[in-house]
Amino acid sequence: MLNKIFSILVFIGVPISVVGSLLNWSSILMFAIYCLTIVALSSFMGRATESLAVVMGPRVGGLLNATFGNAVELLISIFSIKAGLIGVVLASLTGSVIGNLLLVAGLSFFVGGIKYKRQRFNVYDARHNAGLLVFAVVVAFVIPEIFSQNMTDAETMSLSVGISIIMIVLYLAALLFKLVTHRGVYQHQDKNSEANEQEETPEWTRKKSLIILLLATIAVGYISENLVHTFHVVGEYFGWTELFIGIIIVAIVGNAAEHASAVLFAYKNKMEIVVEIAIGSTLQISMFVAPLLVLISLLFPESMPLVFTLPELTAMITSVFLIIILSNDGETNWFEGATLLAAYIIMGIGFYLL
Amino acid sequence: MLNKIFSILVFIGVPISVVGSLLNWSSILMFAIYCLTIVALSSFMGRATESLAVVMGPRVGGLLNATFGNAVELLISIFSIKAGLIGVVLASLTGSVIGNLLLVAGLSFFVGGIKYKRQRFNVYDARHNAGLLVFAVVVAFVIPEIFSQNMTDAETMSLSVGISIIMIVLYLAALLFKLVTHRGVYQHQDKNSEANEQEETPEWTRKKSLIILLLATIAVGYISENLVHTFHVVGEYFGWTELFIGIIIVAIVGNAAEHASAVLFAYKNKMEIVVEIAIGSTLQISMFVAPLLVLISLLFPESMPLVFTLPELTAMITSVFLIIILSNDGETNWFEGATLLAAYIIMGIGFYLL
Amino acid sequence: MLNKIFSILVFIGVPISVVGSLLNWSSILMFAIYCLTIVALSSFMGRATESLAVVMGPRVGGLLNATFGNAVELLISIFSIKAGLIGVVLASLTGSVIGNLLLVAGLSFFVGGIKYKRQRFNVYDARHNAGLLVFAVVVAFVIPEIFSQNMTDAETMSLSVGISIIMIVLYLAALLFKLVTHRGVYQHQDKNSEANEQEETPEWTRKKSLIILLLATIAVGYISENLVHTFHVVGEYFGWTELFIGIIIVAIVGNAAEHASAVLFAYKNKMEIVVEIAIGSTLQISMFVAPLLVLISLLFPESMPLVFTLPELTAMITSVFLIIILSNDGETNWFEGATLLAAYIIMGIGFYLL
Repeated sequence: MLNKIFSILVFIGVPISVVGSLLNWSSILMFAIYCLTIVALSSFMGRATESLAVVMGPRVGGLLNATFGNAVELLISIFSIKAGLIGVVLASLTGSVIGNLLLVAGLSFFVGGIKYKRQRFNVYDARHNAGLLVFAVVVAFVIPEIFSQNMTDAETMSLSVGISIIMIVLYLAALLFKLVTHRGVYQHQDKNSEANEQEETPEWTRKKSLIILLLATIAVGYISENLVHTFHVVGEYFGWTELFIGIIIVAIVGNAAEHASAVLFAYKNKMEIVVEIAIGSTLQISMFVAPLLVLISLLFPESMPLVFTLPELTAMITSVFLIIILSNDGETNWFEGATLLAAYIIMGIGFYLL
Repeated sequence: MLNKIFSILVFIGVPISVVGSLLNWSSILMFAIYCLTIVALSSFMGRATESLAVVMGPRVGGLLNATFGNAVELLISIFSIKAGLIGVVLASLTGSVIGNLLLVAGLSFFVGGIKYKRQRFNVYDARHNAGLLVFAVVVAFVIPEIFSQNMTDAETMSLSVGISIIMIVLYLAALLFKLVTHRGVYQHQDKNSEANEQEETPEWTRKKSLIILLLATIAVGYISENLVHTFHVVGEYFGWTELFIGIIIVAIVGNAAEHASAVLFAYKNKMEIVVEIAIGSTLQISMFVAPLLVLISLLFPESMPLVFTLPELTAMITSVFLIIILSNDGETNWFEGATLLAAYIIMGIGFYLL
Repeated sequence: MLNKIFSILVFIGVPISVVGSLLNWSSILMFAIYCLTIVALSSFMGRATESLAVVMGPRVGGLLNATFGNAVELLISIFSIKAGLIGVVLASLTGSVIGNLLLVAGLSFFVGGIKYKRQRFNVYDARHNAGLLVFAVVVAFVIPEIFSQNMTDAETMSLSVGISIIMIVLYLAALLFKLVTHRGVYQHQDKNSEANEQEETPEWTRKKSLIILLLATIAVGYISENLVHTFHVVGEYFGWTELFIGIIIVAIVGNAAEHASAVLFAYKNKMEIVVEIAIGSTLQISMFVAPLLVLISLLFPESMPLVFTLPELTAMITSVFLIIILSNDGETNWFEGATLLAAYIIMGIGFYLL
């Protein structure tokens, strides 16, 4: 039923988006069309990823999902840096981090928890992720924030570049650890769940899934870029600041794909993939996308230091502490989801009023 | 023996308190009488709560205790807001939080740990509480602190009201979770201890306990209000600032009931109730009393934002991190109690010198 | 092989150090000679400690190691306070804390993790240490930092003295807890590993170990003091600030003994001792050496408050959170070591640029 509606939305929404953007239709109207189309495309991406996850295992599935979700974000950010909008890029990185940790995980835990009393996932993965979250957000983002107060701009940029290189190296080391040296080492606990997954049949074949994922990503990319240009008018119309649009609106729409599939997986009690999407994606943003953008920004006239505003950094740090304390027992329930959502709403109000 | 002394203290202290306050005896003298009487009354409240806990189970017992302890506090705070003493209210909220987390828990763990080498409590409750503590103190109290630096007073108040509503909703959701949807779900581990408790006979019947609890609460309320009016003279006499009186003295005397019964329960190795009193009470203060006071303050000329001073917030956050790290293995010993007490003394010195 | 090289280095290095310092050879040359000799001496101290650990058990062995490592540090710091170099003392305390938590633990976990897929240590010790780390760094160091902003210098010093006394009392209480009241209480898990250790034969006898430890400590102390006087010239030569030398260089060379033996133990899979050296040493520095220095400083014209710079405090707090999140499951692997090392490099770059 829902799948049919989304199919119709995609086949109507994509052409209308193209026509509307070429004919310069009203920004408010196009904003609504773009958003709906992206959400519908996200559902396709979710189903494609789910099919791939059945074929290729939960980790690779989650990794694929995080990658396709963040590729779009990386492209938009590069265009923003080119346009000198450093503040918007840092805001949207913040939005992705708190959006994934609080909104995606919160919604998934809540929806999954309505159906199941207790949902479990690999406690080793939870701890591994917790360590990386503390490293990325509490160490690597906080140090330049505090140290740059007594630094010149050039020194701050040197520190940012140094930290960025180390983060990328550690991110690659994390992949090496997870996929090579310690592949399967911490897996013994969820043998059963993996066995169950083997019995499932994927909705689409691997080839069809990959093609749909590719086409949908291109479409989302195209529409996202047009969506960005409606923000100024929409912001004025609804009384939103650019900061609020960057942190809350861009993050919700930009991560809609991940939201949709994470909630879908939670509803099917596949919490390994939910955690991989929500926390794995945050780690990819903070340990790979953010530092890569710092390095790429060196090619442009205005370079981007790894220095967030104090409210942005506070929002990210407190989100990290909250998700760690809620997730490090390897169990979730609806109330933990509600707690994460409540934290997201509090931050949303804060950024709205700022 | 001790019970007899407390009985005598109550039957002498309460009438003398009434007479003394009507005849305007010396504030220093009355301060001592009030304090002693409250501590003696606390012992009665402790015994009544303990009897109720035997009849009605550890959770309801702890909840009752926290409620009767905080009802007095809520009333005093409303009178203070009416008198425009916003700073004193925030200070006494801070005092309750660090008093419960460090002094009550510290003293209980220490005294209990002298008798028992290792004391255990439900690890699921500990984790549930840890999540809420991080939500309340690290997220909901920190966000307005940081964000309000760039906000007008009106925006800060809007943010405070928004956060307060969300906190109260989540607090009610936590009750729903604990008492309805997940009642008994995380209980399997302490079957034995509950079985043991069934065999005990309560000191007083349920009816007698409730009557004593009610009368003692009224007496504590009456005396507390008179006590507050001696603070100014006592502060000048001993060289204490109003901040120190609000955070340390009010919290110790105002929470004496909880202190007394928590230590009593620890000595009887009923750590479930100790944790419910110390941490449950903190959660009730921070997630229900504090936000309720923000909303109630809207009815008065001077409204109260949810913005603590930096030392107050620092004291609360560091207390939360300390109690979480010490309690989240579901075990305590005398040294963990000593650590909490040491932290309390450090903060006491800090607020004394401030 | 390696032992032979170190033996030669010691028998050549020590006399050359004495001669060179008396004849005022070039500071740059002497700096290199001093460093090499200290590292070689460290290897002797490591072997002596290891022999003692076999005879006297892992805890006493670790305690001995931490004590001999920090005795040198305490002496150098007292000379620095006498010379009025308060900032250098606080910097070198910071350097010891982050050096032990990130560099020593990081290198040990990494090297040990290359050989063993998963290395385990007593999870109770890890939790006990975590509680003390939070107490010392997050509570006892943060409170004076924040509270002193609204205090006079005299009040700040009073607060520092009060906190220092409490910390030393709690440190002694921790020893009482570990060695007397709860000795062996939390040990049941590592019966096997202790059994294995009994079968080993120590390299040196207890007497020979103690003599070597004593002589090496004296030599390290003598050379360290001379090393300090080369820092000014070396700093100018290499473009290092005094802060960077204090935090990074002093800490690396000054703790070389602990580094060497910790890595050695990790390679032999004796993680109990590694943790005792890395975290136990940090606790000794922060809960005993630092407060003792505050009290000793009262005897000198310029007294030392317990107030670090904001970058120093940030570095210590974030290090504590990182080590806790990585170590509190009682397991390590190479990637956790790499994460700690990455954090150390980030902080090193930060202090270098500051």
